Amino acid sequence: MSSMLVVGSIAIDTIHNHLGVHERVIGGSAIFGALAGALFVPVSIVGVVGEDFPLSAIQLLQSKGINTGSIEWAKGKTFHWEGRYSRDLTHRESIRTELNVFAEFQPKIPPALRDTPYVMLGNIHPNLQIEVLEQMARPKLVVADTMNFWITGTPTELARMLARIDVLVINEEEARLLAGVHNIPRAAKILQAMGPRIVVIKRGEYGALLFENGTVFSAPAYPVEDVVDPTGAGDSFAGAMLGALASEDRVDGASLRRAVIYGSVVASFCVEGISVSRLSTVSMQDIRKRYAAFARLAHFASEAELAQLGEKEEKQ
Amino acid sequence: MSSMLVVGSIAIDTIHNHLGVHERVIGGSAIFGALAGALFVPVSIVGVVGEDFPLSAIQLLQSKGINTGSIEWAKGKTFHWEGRYSRDLTHRESIRTELNVFAEFQPKIPPALRDTPYVMLGNIHPNLQIEVLEQMARPKLVVADTMNFWITGTPTELARMLARIDVLVINEEEARLLAGVHNIPRAAKILQAMGPRIVVIKRGEYGALLFENGTVFSAPAYPVEDVVDPTGAGDSFAGAMLGALASEDRVDGASLRRAVIYGSVVASFCVEGISVSRLSTVSMQDIRKRYAAFARLAHFASEAELAQLGEKEEKQ
Repeated sequence: MSSMLVVGSIAIDTIHNHLGVHERVIGGSAIFGALAGALFVPVSIVGVVGEDFPLSAIQLLQSKGINTGSIEWAKGKTFHWEGRYSRDLTHRESIRTELNVFAEFQPKIPPALRDTPYVMLGNIHPNLQIEVLEQMARPKLVVADTMNFWITGTPTELARMLARIDVLVINEEEARLLAGVHNIPRAAKILQAMGPRIVVIKRGEYGALLFENGTVFSAPAYPVEDVVDPTGAGDSFAGAMLGALASEDRVDGASLRRAVIYGSVVASFCVEGISVSRLSTVSMQDIRKRYAAFARLAHFASEAELAQLGEKEEKQ
Repeated sequence: MSSMLVVGSIAIDTIHNHLGVHERVIGGSAIFGALAGALFVPVSIVGVVGEDFPLSAIQLLQSKGINTGSIEWAKGKTFHWEGRYSRDLTHRESIRTELNVFAEFQPKIPPALRDTPYVMLGNIHPNLQIEVLEQMARPKLVVADTMNFWITGTPTELARMLARIDVLVINEEEARLLAGVHNIPRAAKILQAMGPRIVVIKRGEYGALLFENGTVFSAPAYPVEDVVDPTGAGDSFAGAMLGALASEDRVDGASLRRAVIYGSVVASFCVEGISVSRLSTVSMQDIRKRYAAFARLAHFASEAELAQLGEKEEKQ
């Protein structure tokens, strides 16, 4: 078992959905990533909060064994995002984005954390992602997320960041935007040529695709009937994926496939509750059970199994 | 090994895509369904053509062992559809739809075919689909396809048809329209309550979902880099699925999962060529190879395998 570092945004969100308005719940890529990763390995979190950030949230992180010692407390207010989801939860519009203390965020990695082997760079300005990497000793694996805002706004900085990471975790539409092609297998090849040898394309209710070492893995999505809040699904996917890899402390085709399933499992729990409510109560037993459900969901007879079936029938 | 009957449209299509205009190629749900099914079992096809239908197409069907004796030759022209695909092939617009002899089509099932055990009802007016069933002795399995045109235009007739079939194969958007809900697992339950005990939801480049006996199976899509023509993909999926079931002559959870993969395999070949050009040249060896590729695409360690991995590591 190894350990991981998560750097990203820490936020207070106000979420409008079909159930009502959820005022000032906790959010941000680092929060979701850290809680997801902490299901598997010890996690340290780096981010900035303002004076209004609830101590109860820090206590929640600590109760999960997350090292919160490198959360910076700055004068002012915490990054605040307010958004509204469409009835079917497939689209969201931002009502308000107040950067507050996040506007001046400069991630500082304390010496004790610089040799953390597994690093998750949450979706923040690519220059900040690069700054993190410049402070790290040689990590075993760096996973980064990004979004359309950086793809169109800071393409040069993004390209520099991509050249330095191992795994890019990205939404399907953002993969198309960044690669400039619609076809996803082609887009993945283009993204790999930009730097990351491993590309994971998140497709929401359609699962995820893993491109690695010339192979493709298609992970199903768990058919959740009661999606409540998709906020943080992508971040918890990335956090759990990295946490699962860190817990095996091995990165190869097989461990990556398992990690993508663990990412999908944890994201499927995340969306079942508002903010971190489900993510922070899920147990390792819940995760194991749903991992097994993913295996059943995706299972069919391989050609080898089919050949065996045929032999059995002939013997009868 | 059993046999199957395919009833549906037979068409002459003109297709506009990124490669140009493809004038008067063969198409229609019955053609794609029959060619796909004939990869697995003997197929009989029932449909209507006009005097302009090319004999070469009949010869092609016959060369695949398809019984074309019940194709009705009517005075007039064959059903003609002309359409244009968007650059990314995800949307299409109809330029021209000339029903011609298809407008008066009354499917007549000759006595020799009335006890065919496996029946595919291609996407035609639900009343015609019902007329076919009324002529059949008790088939083992009836698969039907439908589309938005009938869902909105003839809901009462469609409901009567759904009450009489075993398997509904339907596009995701059409499943949502028919069920009246966005969430797909919920939509599937609603559709099952309308009649078919088995519901297969086609999701194009995202694969397919099989709902049966309280379980869900998620089939991946093959990552095709060079999609040429999506026409007939859904029909060849349904035809191959039914053909695979007929070849096993067994309908249970395991055979249905294999059949959905065979459907996906054959559909993935279908889209690689204009009209039936790839579908009519693919070999059983090609299909076996791609079936194995689907198994690799979807494979990850199950919990049981994970437990074994853990035990091995402890022993070391």
